[in-house]
Amino acid sequence: MSQCLVKSFGLAVRQQRELHQWSQEQLAENADLNRSYVGEIERGRVVVSLLTVEKLGHAFGISGARLLEIGERLECTVAPKTIQLASIAC
Amino acid sequence: MSQCLVKSFGLAVRQQRELHQWSQEQLAENADLNRSYVGEIERGRVVVSLLTVEKLGHAFGISGARLLEIGERLECTVAPKTIQLASIAC
Repeated sequence: MSQCLVKSFGLAVRQQRELHQWSQEQLAENADLNRSYVGEIERGRVVVSLLTVEKLGHAFGISGARLLEIGERLECTVAPKTIQLASIAC
Repeated sequence: MSQCLVKSFGLAVRQQRELHQWSQEQLAENADLNRSYVGEIERGRVVVSLLTVEKLGHAFGISGARLLEIGERLECTVAPKTIQLASIAC
């Protein structure tokens, strides 16, 4: 469950970033986070703190709770292979 | 904002624990956390990780996102003085 949530939260962050058509650099700047850290989050390699959830939500114009909810709904239903690669194609 | 959220999240945890009429020990056991760590969370002294948010929500029978939402709604509207001390009175 835990591993799955970390990965699905990362997918939610990537999904929201792509909705905004932002690069990881732009998200990092808007959320006051390090660019490489944003990459680690999206790949589900780090367990973020509550404050990072809030920072990311704030950058996207939604609450941290809403961002987490998006991640929970993706949980275990979306495999990494199905990530939309729109940001890479741009 | 950050300091406020950490405190309000702690209040949300305490509020939910009191709703369940659990001691901190009982919550710690149900959430698979250390008792003293639960105390620190409720006092707003630690910034929890995403996984701890999920563990706590799961113990209360709600999602982590819902628990965080409760905390966000309390944010800066409830001063520590107004905490209901039912758990101490029991």
